[in-house]
Amino acid sequence: MNVVITDPPRVARRTAEAFAPYGVATVHEAQGRTGLLASYLRPIYPGAKIAGSAVTVSIPPADNWMLHVAVEQCQPGDVLVVAPTSPCDTGYFGELLACSLAARGVLGLVIEAGCRDVAALTGMRFPVWSRAVSAQGTVKETLGSVNVPIVCAGQLVHPGDLVIADDDGIVVVSRAAAEEVLRKSEARERKEEGTRARLQAGELGLDIYGMREKLAEKGLTYRRMAEG
Amino acid sequence: MNVVITDPPRVARRTAEAFAPYGVATVHEAQGRTGLLASYLRPIYPGAKIAGSAVTVSIPPADNWMLHVAVEQCQPGDVLVVAPTSPCDTGYFGELLACSLAARGVLGLVIEAGCRDVAALTGMRFPVWSRAVSAQGTVKETLGSVNVPIVCAGQLVHPGDLVIADDDGIVVVSRAAAEEVLRKSEARERKEEGTRARLQAGELGLDIYGMREKLAEKGLTYRRMAEG
Amino acid sequence: MNVVITDPPRVARRTAEAFAPYGVATVHEAQGRTGLLASYLRPIYPGAKIAGSAVTVSIPPADNWMLHVAVEQCQPGDVLVVAPTSPCDTGYFGELLACSLAARGVLGLVIEAGCRDVAALTGMRFPVWSRAVSAQGTVKETLGSVNVPIVCAGQLVHPGDLVIADDDGIVVVSRAAAEEVLRKSEARERKEEGTRARLQAGELGLDIYGMREKLAEKGLTYRRMAEG
Amino acid sequence: MNVVITDPPRVARRTAEAFAPYGVATVHEAQGRTGLLASYLRPIYPGAKIAGSAVTVSIPPADNWMLHVAVEQCQPGDVLVVAPTSPCDTGYFGELLACSLAARGVLGLVIEAGCRDVAALTGMRFPVWSRAVSAQGTVKETLGSVNVPIVCAGQLVHPGDLVIADDDGIVVVSRAAAEEVLRKSEARERKEEGTRARLQAGELGLDIYGMREKLAEKGLTYRRMAEG
Amino acid sequence: MNVVITDPPRVARRTAEAFAPYGVATVHEAQGRTGLLASYLRPIYPGAKIAGSAVTVSIPPADNWMLHVAVEQCQPGDVLVVAPTSPCDTGYFGELLACSLAARGVLGLVIEAGCRDVAALTGMRFPVWSRAVSAQGTVKETLGSVNVPIVCAGQLVHPGDLVIADDDGIVVVSRAAAEEVLRKSEARERKEEGTRARLQAGELGLDIYGMREKLAEKGLTYRRMAEG
Amino acid sequence: MNVVITDPPRVARRTAEAFAPYGVATVHEAQGRTGLLASYLRPIYPGAKIAGSAVTVSIPPADNWMLHVAVEQCQPGDVLVVAPTSPCDTGYFGELLACSLAARGVLGLVIEAGCRDVAALTGMRFPVWSRAVSAQGTVKETLGSVNVPIVCAGQLVHPGDLVIADDDGIVVVSRAAAEEVLRKSEARERKEEGTRARLQAGELGLDIYGMREKLAEKGLTYRRMAEG
Repeated sequence: MNVVITDPPRVARRTAEAFAPYGVATVHEAQGRTGLLASYLRPIYPGAKIAGSAVTVSIPPADNWMLHVAVEQCQPGDVLVVAPTSPCDTGYFGELLACSLAARGVLGLVIEAGCRDVAALTGMRFPVWSRAVSAQGTVKETLGSVNVPIVCAGQLVHPGDLVIADDDGIVVVSRAAAEEVLRKSEARERKEEGTRARLQAGELGLDIYGMREKLAEKGLTYRRMAEG
Repeated sequence: MNVVITDPPRVARRTAEAFAPYGVATVHEAQGRTGLLASYLRPIYPGAKIAGSAVTVSIPPADNWMLHVAVEQCQPGDVLVVAPTSPCDTGYFGELLACSLAARGVLGLVIEAGCRDVAALTGMRFPVWSRAVSAQGTVKETLGSVNVPIVCAGQLVHPGDLVIADDDGIVVVSRAAAEEVLRKSEARERKEEGTRARLQAGELGLDIYGMREKLAEKGLTYRRMAEG
Repeated sequence: MNVVITDPPRVARRTAEAFAPYGVATVHEAQGRTGLLASYLRPIYPGAKIAGSAVTVSIPPADNWMLHVAVEQCQPGDVLVVAPTSPCDTGYFGELLACSLAARGVLGLVIEAGCRDVAALTGMRFPVWSRAVSAQGTVKETLGSVNVPIVCAGQLVHPGDLVIADDDGIVVVSRAAAEEVLRKSEARERKEEGTRARLQAGELGLDIYGMREKLAEKGLTYRRMAEG
Repeated sequence: MNVVITDPPRVARRTAEAFAPYGVATVHEAQGRTGLLASYLRPIYPGAKIAGSAVTVSIPPADNWMLHVAVEQCQPGDVLVVAPTSPCDTGYFGELLACSLAARGVLGLVIEAGCRDVAALTGMRFPVWSRAVSAQGTVKETLGSVNVPIVCAGQLVHPGDLVIADDDGIVVVSRAAAEEVLRKSEARERKEEGTRARLQAGELGLDIYGMREKLAEKGLTYRRMAEG
Repeated sequence: MNVVITDPPRVARRTAEAFAPYGVATVHEAQGRTGLLASYLRPIYPGAKIAGSAVTVSIPPADNWMLHVAVEQCQPGDVLVVAPTSPCDTGYFGELLACSLAARGVLGLVIEAGCRDVAALTGMRFPVWSRAVSAQGTVKETLGSVNVPIVCAGQLVHPGDLVIADDDGIVVVSRAAAEEVLRKSEARERKEEGTRARLQAGELGLDIYGMREKLAEKGLTYRRMAEG
Repeated sequence: MNVVITDPPRVARRTAEAFAPYGVATVHEAQGRTGLLASYLRPIYPGAKIAGSAVTVSIPPADNWMLHVAVEQCQPGDVLVVAPTSPCDTGYFGELLACSLAARGVLGLVIEAGCRDVAALTGMRFPVWSRAVSAQGTVKETLGSVNVPIVCAGQLVHPGDLVIADDDGIVVVSRAAAEEVLRKSEARERKEEGTRARLQAGELGLDIYGMREKLAEKGLTYRRMAEG
């Protein structure tokens, strides 16, 4: 039942890196509003942004043994994605594991549980998106699995999927769709650039998007406030 | 049922701007501990402080169409205050809407729902107080209302009310009371300045506020700890 | 029933200050994973770290009268630790009380309730770990007790216990055990330094900690991913 | 600032009683999906249903003094609606107050805080919708107000408004609209009866409501599952 | 993107019905502690127990249009399993939809959102496991999908999977594994029967499970309490 | 570090049983509003009430091994009180352990974690107060301690303390104070009986408790509602 799958196909690094200009909100829109992890996962410090290939870990509650196993499966450009098999805010991850992951070129960690040593992690700029900050330690007694499909914060993540995380949260893009979503993100961004310029110049979204007629059809009325 | 009220009377800009030195906690005390929005609304970045006239929006869950309608109703010095008709953490608001509001001189947004593009909003210093950060998008299908009285985070807000927000939260002051609350805030601040100096010099609140007698009357006793 | 215990024995300042290099996670591990306060207490700004002797306050809900009483019991190097007798997020503590505590050399506050004036507290670098940020004020009507044992965020705290707080949370060490926990923290830190260097050099925890055999015994298997 | 308003106009008892056949969900729909209190208010036992005229109480956190004041303002057919001025789960209300209200013909209590003696209240069939069950007592030190407009669980409630509560929650109907909402509830119920019979007979909502065309227009497609 | 998959293979009714004697906890253990939905889904009344084949629905926030679409895809013995694409407690489901599902022989509903008309549903014994009870209605504007894989309350559910629900919660068993998990549940239950009888007779688990030696090895010590 | 303390002194059974007429709210008031466990512990079925001597268990997260150890330490009239060392909603306890405890005459369980098999527990009338209902199982790998002081749901509980639980929650009374709190509970109940009769007869608490003068002193005013 407990297995480590080695050498999963990964999203190409070049593809992952091409997502650098596009935020999580843009990518999430570009792929049709799917793949967003729950908003209770938050970054431990502001300003981080990563895009890489998922190494997934299914892990028992309050037991971080499998994180040590997972490190060996990581390559440069990977993102570790961890979900406990039952809800848990324990501090599974801290500075030592971060040193080990950083040494292998891992970009960051997404964990539906707790994280600790956040001052040190901030200092070394190793970004973590977690459910809690907690100094509570874990045991090393029970197995889990690495590189199996997991559900993390409400989303199914396969090993090798593209994971993008920034201050807005985390979105997962299937490996197969990554190139297409990249193109759609680019297109969306280009379109937004034009819109942004017009909005900054004072044009209204009501006019740019041509909403007035549809609003009227739905029955929206305008009325000047009576003096009161 | 769905209506946009135009040209509500506003609190005078000069009045709103005169609140600059007074924090939310001070104003809340000065008006008798009323008008505070629930503490689950938090700023997306530290250090922002605004005071302006409310443009209110009642909005369906997961549908941000009415925000586009509301932009047109905003003037320089306004604060947009948004509440969904049922609880929702969706990311209603992001960079493009912020560009549009900023172009109209709006000071910031208070929303009992989610916000996205927080890195961009932080970069452009457009402050938002929200219930969640979420990249989850919304649809544009259902009407709401603009400039009607709303309940936002547990407080009734009328269009044109004064809204003050800082790192401590958000307080609403009725338009009619704004001048009086300003005077009381000034008075409170002056009084606190004197107290602050005495406390910094090492005097005790027990003495400054004359609490010792009342504490004794209520039965407070002092006892030296036994060695243990 | 309501009492102020004066002059409790304290952990020696020299001992408390010797904890400066050791984070909460390290100390918590060093004393056998006990004494950690619940993770819902969070610092009001990042980067603070304190270690001092607890002055404890048991306080009624939404009533901060006893904080004024507690100030008088504080000495340089103390940490104020406050728990309400029923759950409450009200803003018990703000800038004026912080001025008073700072004037007495108090290092910071741990409170299982709300805090306000966080911009001012951040500006004066007076650190607070609280359950909420709330501008909501309190009354001064009902007594509590100072320097009695309290339960704060799930942990029993005695007056004079050592309290250590940083970005990861708060841990309490009994006064009697402080010296021993200091030695164990030093030992743990020394050991971790060696491990950190090896991890940074690319060695795996699997090898450093000799985990491979035990994992195999438990039945962990490795399998190359099939193409899919 | 603290005031008891006496003899507010009430919704007519005959009108309130005419709502007996209509549940909260029906009334909420009938008045255009407004007026619903937040779903975290839950009944202390299943099966209760009331409809009556609101007597409102604004009350300090953890202080139930004003409930005693409010009792005197109650008449047969009233519903007491209570909101604390800051969030609080304390047990404001128990058997003795229920005896007093029952003696005056009050139908039940809606409180955005805690309730206790729930076994006794269940035994005497005095229904309460509350945020928590808690044995924690309150003090009697600080004033509030009776029969002023309050925000309770996210809804504005005026004294004399119609309040309807059942297992689904609580809805408030303004006094002025009560007769009209009654008629609309009757109409909605009649219409639902016909629909119910057709659904029970096996007809599909897709056909009864004529949804198929609009679904197709929006682009919904059907596809037989491939064997897998 | 939005699709209704028709005629998915189902777990055999005979197999599903054979699970009647086995509770969710037993099945969850029997399949190796996997497949449990999050515990925040709760039954609307105590005592219900169902086991059937999943018809899955992915649905927009606060929009229940697709439930009407899903009804047509249901057969006797099915269980409807519904997850919104972003978190939402709105009351998607009530008496009319329950009448429609009951007319088609559907056993019950599992929904990661709100439910209403709970008194009527209880009266007709149509069981629902939901995240909230809320009278808040939904719109019918936006498409979703039926019989696609969904994540509901943290678990991946495929159409045709076996879903078992009782007072302890909900577990999903893949269609392929249903027969095997049935045999393991039977075996587990048989074994527990013997253990239960011995425990009821006063034997200790310590002896029945042979735990004493392993506890001693791990270092557990016994000590008589000193008088205090 | 992990120890089982045997034969702690217990509160006398006769004393515990004498608390039968007094609810948790009454006892909590009688001992000065102390000792109440947090209200998030809820009974798994309504109507249970127990009073007995605490056997305490400190237990690792998601590991129920020590419950088996604790059973052996229980006597008739005991109540098992369990707290995990870090927050956890896992289902530690079910039917088999309940059979074992019931065979030893244990009255019930209080656990700051999850419970399962609630239908069976309800059927055998073995009451449990828990933080969650969850079918999620636990491992048996890590030691804890039995009959050491623990913090459970925010309260310090010593082995041998009196624990009283009913529909309102749970209160702990120190063994030394049990007799005195019993007398005070009796006195309070007698006094309430008189008050109850007067309230049922229609007298007002305002008059019975003599509150009118103090309310007026504090500044409460009455005003007839203006027509509006």
